[in-house]
Amino acid sequence: MGVIVQKYGGTSVADLDRIRHVADRVIRTARQGHALVVIVSAMAGVTDGLIALARRVDPEPDKRELDALLATGEQTTAALLAMTLRARGVPAQSLLGFQVEVRTDFCYGNARIQDIGVERMRRLLDQGVIVVVAGFQGCDPEGNITTLGRGGSDTSAVAIAAALRADCCEIYTDVPGVFTADPNLVPRARKLERISYEEMLEMASIGAKVLQIRSVEFAMKYRVPVHVRSTFSDEEGTMVVAEENGMERVVVSAVTMSKTDARITLKNVPDRPGIAARIFTPVAEAGICVDMIIQNTRASGATDLTFTVPRADYRKALAIERQVAAEIGAEEVLGDESIAKVSITGVGMRSHPGVAARMFATLAREGINILMISTSEIRISCVIEQKYAELAVQSLHSAFGLDAPA
Amino acid sequence: MGVIVQKYGGTSVADLDRIRHVADRVIRTARQGHALVVIVSAMAGVTDGLIALARRVDPEPDKRELDALLATGEQTTAALLAMTLRARGVPAQSLLGFQVEVRTDFCYGNARIQDIGVERMRRLLDQGVIVVVAGFQGCDPEGNITTLGRGGSDTSAVAIAAALRADCCEIYTDVPGVFTADPNLVPRARKLERISYEEMLEMASIGAKVLQIRSVEFAMKYRVPVHVRSTFSDEEGTMVVAEENGMERVVVSAVTMSKTDARITLKNVPDRPGIAARIFTPVAEAGICVDMIIQNTRASGATDLTFTVPRADYRKALAIERQVAAEIGAEEVLGDESIAKVSITGVGMRSHPGVAARMFATLAREGINILMISTSEIRISCVIEQKYAELAVQSLHSAFGLDAPA
Repeated sequence: MGVIVQKYGGTSVADLDRIRHVADRVIRTARQGHALVVIVSAMAGVTDGLIALARRVDPEPDKRELDALLATGEQTTAALLAMTLRARGVPAQSLLGFQVEVRTDFCYGNARIQDIGVERMRRLLDQGVIVVVAGFQGCDPEGNITTLGRGGSDTSAVAIAAALRADCCEIYTDVPGVFTADPNLVPRARKLERISYEEMLEMASIGAKVLQIRSVEFAMKYRVPVHVRSTFSDEEGTMVVAEENGMERVVVSAVTMSKTDARITLKNVPDRPGIAARIFTPVAEAGICVDMIIQNTRASGATDLTFTVPRADYRKALAIERQVAAEIGAEEVLGDESIAKVSITGVGMRSHPGVAARMFATLAREGINILMISTSEIRISCVIEQKYAELAVQSLHSAFGLDAPA
Repeated sequence: MGVIVQKYGGTSVADLDRIRHVADRVIRTARQGHALVVIVSAMAGVTDGLIALARRVDPEPDKRELDALLATGEQTTAALLAMTLRARGVPAQSLLGFQVEVRTDFCYGNARIQDIGVERMRRLLDQGVIVVVAGFQGCDPEGNITTLGRGGSDTSAVAIAAALRADCCEIYTDVPGVFTADPNLVPRARKLERISYEEMLEMASIGAKVLQIRSVEFAMKYRVPVHVRSTFSDEEGTMVVAEENGMERVVVSAVTMSKTDARITLKNVPDRPGIAARIFTPVAEAGICVDMIIQNTRASGATDLTFTVPRADYRKALAIERQVAAEIGAEEVLGDESIAKVSITGVGMRSHPGVAARMFATLAREGINILMISTSEIRISCVIEQKYAELAVQSLHSAFGLDAPA
């Protein structure tokens, strides 16, 4: 019997009525003869509420304790959904991260799954029990609760689907699928029927909020077919699958934008060997991910060094770099939180030259200055001033022929 | 270095301000050179809110899932207190039931502690870390979350104190100690300086809400000195200790009352061997605790059988007994939820005859009909109509000379 994994996001389980609606869908799928594992997020707003509560205790709350606090959100939903299913006479059981077991590293707040125990889930599935798993959470080797970062329930779902060799991992969300751009920004954005893991990975890494990036990595690595679809309709969503020959060969599949980064510049850094390590090691040790890095050599022989970090870690990174700058004799440290990153993604880029040039020309035509650029084989990202973010997305969406027919 | 265990109840941790106040007290105790384990309840109202939420899903929610849901309450408080302590630079770490490990049986909603792991706590205490434990929760041998029943955090605290051979277990609550009666009912009730485990045990078993009964059993068994005191003052509370010769030899130490039971009567039960087993086995199998039992033989040779159950299990027990009655040919099943149990307790009873007679006479003088009676060596309880409960407590408090000087 094939295993189906379903994941329901926060808006899908926002209250008891919606949880009942999820139970309907779960029961329908189970009656079709599937063994079923359901991963749930915290009810909409709960995680943010808990973070706000923790910040009232401490603006930088202890990460281990914050994870123990946040994990209650998914625990609540999992228990309520299992209860709802059992109240209808359907055998169901909730499992928490440590019970599954979702084993992670020690990186509180952004832990990585290392291994998933399948025995307990298999035993329950074999008994015809629907397994309801609290998403977003795991357990480190010492038994501490960890969380997987924003959107971590997606990763829980895909990792569990991979571990169980599920036929499909359905991600139920409040949007009907993956779009060529955020429909809130671009009214003429279109839903994609299929998208490759590679494109989804690039899109997830640059702010498409539809799937957490690590979930796509897992899906790609273990070839888990992922179906992104709406909880609120029966319409087919977007299949995230391996790249196929028959796949639509558009140059650019989607335009995305994020406002979650901040930029830090160290001015006039002495140009000595080992200086980059001096600058980036303390940031890495603080668990902060650096994204883009640019180094400009000055006429004097010194260099300016600019990089981006998640906005959540901005203050911490800034404090660290101020100390580093003093130690290495850099002139000053500048910071900027009002930036945005605009990206275009598409497997077709591999075989079409001139895509970058067209992107830069489009932005230039709108008078948008490019602050930083980074590229991959199938993606180009530009950091721009935040105020131009929406304009940039709209003009790129048109320029690359993605607008739906008017 | 001596270990002190402190337990803070729901009103003591009702909001972030109160949690800060608890942190003050914890830090003060730690600075006096004590190794410290702090057990916390859910914030006031949280457990009731979660139960109400679960009942909206299902009037009789699945017990395993309810426990997983309820455990989030203490998890939240533990994380917030540990965070608060760490924000002040004091090393602290929260531990949940499964992390401690508080190993229990499988009885969801009312699990019994079977064993407590001390290694992890000891290791943290040796490192100078304040251990903050989520009370009320444990973990069965299969790793499911269990809860210990109303007031279970008291039991968590005393059991942990016993396991760690703590010098003292301080129970911080919203009252200044143990009283001769509930001061809300009896304005002239007095605070007791000391009370024996035995008396406290009887009082806890009959509705004195100050300590969960199982916590007193643990304290008595392992001779843990328990100090019941107020979070909101530095005044000494009541010491619960082994009975001493020097202990005040009053006949009756306290009058208590509970409205948490319901009564079920099977009328005209055929008087055959094995019939009592037929009546009580299915109730026991449903995990319902029967308290008092009375059997009256009728002239016909049949009997009426009356017993009490927790009001929370009343409907379930009634349904079970209606089926049993049909099977065994009993005439009918009657139920009554509006009863109260009034009790007097005191080690002095052992050596003073006539206490029961005085209790019955006192109730008779007020026109209160006694529906059921049960006694132990140091306690007498009467079930009466609920509407007389307060009157009964007040008149007994006076009759046994417990009123404070006017």
